[in-house]
Amino acid sequence: MDHSRRGFLTAVGATGGAGALLATMGALGLAPTAEAAARTAFDPPRPSDFTLTGRGAKKVVVLGAGVAGLATAYELGKAGYDCTVLEALDRVGGRNWTIRGGDRITELNGSTQVARFSDGIYMNAGPARLAQWMVTMDYCRELGVPLEVFTNSNAQAYIFNESAGMTAPVAWRTAKADVYGYISELLSTATDSGALDAKLTAQDKDRLITFLRGFGSIGTKAAGFAYTGTEHRGYSVNPGAGEQPGTILGPVPSLSEVLASGVGQRFSFEFGYEQAMLMFQPAGGMDAIPKAFARAVGKDRIRLRSVVTKITDLPDGVEVEYQDKDGRTRKIKADFCVAAMPPHILAKTPHNLGPDVQAALATPTVTSSGKIGLEYRRRWWETDENIYGGITNTDLDLSVMWYPSYGYGQRRGLVIGYYNNGANQDAYAALSHPEREKRAVAQGVKIHGAKYRDELATSVSVSWRLQPHIEGAWVGWPSRTGGYQLLNKPAGHVHFAGDWLSYLIAWQAGALESARKTVTDLHTRVLTH
Amino acid sequence: MDHSRRGFLTAVGATGGAGALLATMGALGLAPTAEAAARTAFDPPRPSDFTLTGRGAKKVVVLGAGVAGLATAYELGKAGYDCTVLEALDRVGGRNWTIRGGDRITELNGSTQVARFSDGIYMNAGPARLAQWMVTMDYCRELGVPLEVFTNSNAQAYIFNESAGMTAPVAWRTAKADVYGYISELLSTATDSGALDAKLTAQDKDRLITFLRGFGSIGTKAAGFAYTGTEHRGYSVNPGAGEQPGTILGPVPSLSEVLASGVGQRFSFEFGYEQAMLMFQPAGGMDAIPKAFARAVGKDRIRLRSVVTKITDLPDGVEVEYQDKDGRTRKIKADFCVAAMPPHILAKTPHNLGPDVQAALATPTVTSSGKIGLEYRRRWWETDENIYGGITNTDLDLSVMWYPSYGYGQRRGLVIGYYNNGANQDAYAALSHPEREKRAVAQGVKIHGAKYRDELATSVSVSWRLQPHIEGAWVGWPSRTGGYQLLNKPAGHVHFAGDWLSYLIAWQAGALESARKTVTDLHTRVLTH
Repeated sequence: MDHSRRGFLTAVGATGGAGALLATMGALGLAPTAEAAARTAFDPPRPSDFTLTGRGAKKVVVLGAGVAGLATAYELGKAGYDCTVLEALDRVGGRNWTIRGGDRITELNGSTQVARFSDGIYMNAGPARLAQWMVTMDYCRELGVPLEVFTNSNAQAYIFNESAGMTAPVAWRTAKADVYGYISELLSTATDSGALDAKLTAQDKDRLITFLRGFGSIGTKAAGFAYTGTEHRGYSVNPGAGEQPGTILGPVPSLSEVLASGVGQRFSFEFGYEQAMLMFQPAGGMDAIPKAFARAVGKDRIRLRSVVTKITDLPDGVEVEYQDKDGRTRKIKADFCVAAMPPHILAKTPHNLGPDVQAALATPTVTSSGKIGLEYRRRWWETDENIYGGITNTDLDLSVMWYPSYGYGQRRGLVIGYYNNGANQDAYAALSHPEREKRAVAQGVKIHGAKYRDELATSVSVSWRLQPHIEGAWVGWPSRTGGYQLLNKPAGHVHFAGDWLSYLIAWQAGALESARKTVTDLHTRVLTH
Repeated sequence: MDHSRRGFLTAVGATGGAGALLATMGALGLAPTAEAAARTAFDPPRPSDFTLTGRGAKKVVVLGAGVAGLATAYELGKAGYDCTVLEALDRVGGRNWTIRGGDRITELNGSTQVARFSDGIYMNAGPARLAQWMVTMDYCRELGVPLEVFTNSNAQAYIFNESAGMTAPVAWRTAKADVYGYISELLSTATDSGALDAKLTAQDKDRLITFLRGFGSIGTKAAGFAYTGTEHRGYSVNPGAGEQPGTILGPVPSLSEVLASGVGQRFSFEFGYEQAMLMFQPAGGMDAIPKAFARAVGKDRIRLRSVVTKITDLPDGVEVEYQDKDGRTRKIKADFCVAAMPPHILAKTPHNLGPDVQAALATPTVTSSGKIGLEYRRRWWETDENIYGGITNTDLDLSVMWYPSYGYGQRRGLVIGYYNNGANQDAYAALSHPEREKRAVAQGVKIHGAKYRDELATSVSVSWRLQPHIEGAWVGWPSRTGGYQLLNKPAGHVHFAGDWLSYLIAWQAGALESARKTVTDLHTRVLTH
């Protein structure tokens, strides 16, 4: 080992000089602790911050028991702040919503669905996946929420680009084998022909072709570096016992066919910092997170079915008016308010925070998104197609189809039949639930055949634009200057928090990071005044 | 959708003729039921096979309670065969061995370790992962063994090629970003320059460059298609709240540095039909599978600590002599025998099956393999490095390091500190356990720093060559003709079964498929004679 390493470094030194040597020694590597360093530091408020300074903890009213609001009350509560959380819905979590049998889904259009899911079946209507580096993972550890893998990608799931002329889905493994095979053939050919000599040394060329041989499973130079298929595609007859070596899936489409299919354009999804596997989910449903927060905050501090009707900043604090669960108008006075509601809902709420704040709240654009959960009488994706979790990616209006990341091997299971955004979602939102189901199933039949219709037991759909007191999936800012910056500062005694005030919009981690920032701002303010 | 699809097909038809059109329509796709068709058909013996034909079920002695032996007894038992299983060890499962606190590991060199693992900590010393398409998944469903994801690859785990001069590990995500970035830059450049015009039409070129733009996150043509980094690399400061957009990890190594590092050579592991994610494991330990088989077979039919000493084929059946748990020599007579022991152990067992069978049993070469399980006092890979499962791949003698696929967020956890084969494993096998631990830890410190030593609580190592009655990890055949074919047929009344008689050697699926084949052969023989 030592010998070959020294040999390599000598060779680099000889061809590239000391600069190249140093760069090779360092630039490739990621220091072992770098990932930990990537985290945002947070120092939670502590009781001793008050007891040791003679100050008293303040009273805070938190608007919204979504993830940002709950985390705010939780962190402030650690130091003894007297927090009250007002929540318009009859549950905590906001968009973190897990639907189970018996739950009601009421939409702003007046319709109501009642979920008829079997025992043990659930649907995460909102957030459903956690990236390893996100602070959400740390809160799950701190709150004792058990985690399991969320199956964000699966070689066995499909890609289907109908508009590119595909008549049947192709497995991710097959699509990757063909794309990687052909690009390896092309790049080896170009490299060997000298076409890239301006960019590659002779040693680079050797190393590149060595890499491509394995990466693309291509032939030798004598064979023209040709891609002619590989076991990476999968098998039409599996390897087995005795005289059964297996049959690699064929035929291999041509280079032009592979490029025309557009399957390769799906790959980069898996490389994203936010989406790359491994990803995780709380066992039993995403709402384990807000439920754990609510337990830690104390349920007596959370007032459900309490709709905020007015926010008034006062010289010495803040007053919030709300309609309680019995329809009575009530008021609560506090030293501070943390408004952890969606900006477009805040923008519809009377306040005295001034026109700049109002303009800022009205600035972000609201995104449509929604899902349908299809419970099947049997897990045909597992028994018939060997798909245990993962995502099928399409250019159909269903966008993606998710196979469940829980309940493997059980009888029944829930497929997310669409998770789509924008115009695709708006088209489904405009339909009644039965019509949504019919449309989603008709599209899914293109991927999975008649069983996608025949085995369906029941379904539920959620369109976030139509959810009372939420009215949207997430928001986007035209710019991070102006309104975004303004709302990241307090308006009088009112602070704001939410994923919409972070660079992790639509992620619970954004809500949590924003809550931490707001908690730090508020606590610093209290301790320094 | 219909319109653009028709437009595309018309375009293909215009440029490529009807043949190209048909190919595009079909060759890309995988028929929805193709994966199911890939399975090997199996029709288990049924009681009615006997009751409806007036035949009686036969008596069978099965040698070995590994996965093949257990599955044989299980499937034959479905039709009422009177099976007895002889097992040399004091447990079922064979190489499927899950070690927990209190378990003893005795090696042929006379040493004994006693596992000091904490409650809930376990180590799968043998098989540890299941591919979705393998028949093992079906047996887990049939036997009620709950499954969870085995984390076979993780963007957050590392690659470390010390012999290539790397001084620190690089995350898989970072390695992929750089390799894919540079090959996209190179292939775009070559494509655009016309160097590949013999292989690519103008339309192909456009589509290829469009793909590479996204795949490699490279610049435009005006920017020379340059790769200059991407968020796919990861962040040194994560995106967060307020004014924290995050900082993408840098600096980006040069093309030559990336090629010299050899990181790309690790990628194809993830594309293999046997290794591609998603993969699975039984919750709570791999031995849930043999335990479930043993329950289904009936524990009274399995004789543990019973070492086969002689196999005698008789004109009307077979007689097996064995030493029982009290050291007494006993004999069992049956109509048939299924020898489901490793071939090199059978080759050392006296028998009268003839010189050809003996030569065949002695033909396969035995592979060394082993693991060390390191229990840590805290899950620093999760808390400090955001690695929740997955595999770090190295050119060190430890080969690979596995982070646990269970117990996320808990206090303690077990890392597989090496899982290596061949000469690397032989070097560790030659050491005492404390020396193995010392060597493995010294290597691991290169990846994870001093905590890899300081936080260690206890460890256990298994070298399969040194395991009594097993004496190897798996075998290889020089050819699938001759001995392999001979042993896939019965020798008198003795049939053989095991992964070593399949094209899935070293996989439980190979043992299961072989058992099914042997059960079918034996049952067919019984029904037709």
